Amino acid sequence: MRHLKLTVSYDGTDYVGWQVQPNGMSIQQRLEDGWEKVTSERIRITASGRTDAGVHAIGQVCSLKTENQLPPERLLRALNCQTPYDIAVTNIEEAPTDFHAIRDAVEKTYRYFVQFGTIQDPLRLRTCWYVPGILNVEAMRASLPHLVGTLDFASFQSVGADRSTTIRTVHQLMIDDRSMHGFPGIEITISANGFLYNMVRNIVGSLIEVGKERQKPDWLGWLRDQRDRNRAGQTAPAQGLFLDHVVYEKSIKP
Amino acid sequence: MRHLKLTVSYDGTDYVGWQVQPNGMSIQQRLEDGWEKVTSERIRITASGRTDAGVHAIGQVCSLKTENQLPPERLLRALNCQTPYDIAVTNIEEAPTDFHAIRDAVEKTYRYFVQFGTIQDPLRLRTCWYVPGILNVEAMRASLPHLVGTLDFASFQSVGADRSTTIRTVHQLMIDDRSMHGFPGIEITISANGFLYNMVRNIVGSLIEVGKERQKPDWLGWLRDQRDRNRAGQTAPAQGLFLDHVVYEKSIKP
Repeated sequence: MRHLKLTVSYDGTDYVGWQVQPNGMSIQQRLEDGWEKVTSERIRITASGRTDAGVHAIGQVCSLKTENQLPPERLLRALNCQTPYDIAVTNIEEAPTDFHAIRDAVEKTYRYFVQFGTIQDPLRLRTCWYVPGILNVEAMRASLPHLVGTLDFASFQSVGADRSTTIRTVHQLMIDDRSMHGFPGIEITISANGFLYNMVRNIVGSLIEVGKERQKPDWLGWLRDQRDRNRAGQTAPAQGLFLDHVVYEKSIKP
Repeated sequence: MRHLKLTVSYDGTDYVGWQVQPNGMSIQQRLEDGWEKVTSERIRITASGRTDAGVHAIGQVCSLKTENQLPPERLLRALNCQTPYDIAVTNIEEAPTDFHAIRDAVEKTYRYFVQFGTIQDPLRLRTCWYVPGILNVEAMRASLPHLVGTLDFASFQSVGADRSTTIRTVHQLMIDDRSMHGFPGIEITISANGFLYNMVRNIVGSLIEVGKERQKPDWLGWLRDQRDRNRAGQTAPAQGLFLDHVVYEKSIKP
């Protein structure tokens, strides 16, 4: 049995999310269907994280086991011919026999785009959350240190999650200017060793409370200590979220 | 009679173009319908240029005449409530009585985005032309001086145009790196005092001939001198093209 590591990019707008679901088309199903067309083999493809409906990926990482013996570069080309334009496999490489895209991930990085001001940018509808009005970006930046480190993120976990612990280590959290086309905007980048359900979107929703000056920067520290999702900001919508890349500790060269 | 100058941004993907047409929805119709809902007045809105189906705009400029007396900022807010999300009016201001968006334009700037390499970026499907394979960007840059200045651009004019002269002055033509998400890409920016029909898309298609090394950089000079559209490269597709902004000589303050 051969083990492969796939890197996948997608526009999540028209999908129910990564995971196969009865109510619509998923990224996973498109990839598994494509794989079957190429290899005549029905397999399960495992992603580092199950992105929700409407969430995008730049460098999602997947693992799979196959009996197929085609070289990676031929599989890559054939697979991209069998998937729609809004999904692209950007890399395929051999992985060690025990490689598992979820279990072996040591760090994931997400990017979240917010566009604000009095008018919504028509050219970023699919890739940004539009927040009407002004954001105090400096106040948002001042609040970030409250969420960096090994901390209990229970306040930022949506219901429906089944994680055994709500402690995660956030390695990096930053805000960069992403004004475009004359419309103000920001990008929030967050790297952590793991994420609770909706954690990025709940952090972004809470940061916006500070940006809107409904809360002070130190509120983020207070909120974190409450360990109570009901006190946090809204869950930011899916279309602004991108899974950027996933880091694996082990060399994936077999 | 009051004269107004509007600045408009739009995602052209789902439209037949700027101009009202029987075969589908246009930007102009959306704006004129929106204007009527706000003011109960049916007027004609004139744009600096009639962008084709699928072409986008960041700063399209329009002129209109109205009997309405609402302040510009109130008209702006009301009009944006009556247009779909993929069209935004970003500015309205008073204009001199003789202001005309086409006639008074002294310079227009377009931006064209090309993504290349072995794999198409799923996150730029609506905003880039995907050219498979490698592009020699330095060769493309070397060819640009052949198209800067007051020149006859007949080789880059598509049929169906009715311009009295094919001479235009290109003030600036440049190529910048726009690699994103791990996919290589470029932006071609062109400013001129006016453009022939499909001129930007025909120039881009010809530049790609150089980038693909099917032609040398100096071919652009030869091609220009032929004044023959049939010898140029293909017309680059609409989705990579953005009307960036329009410059007017007259102060538009009345």
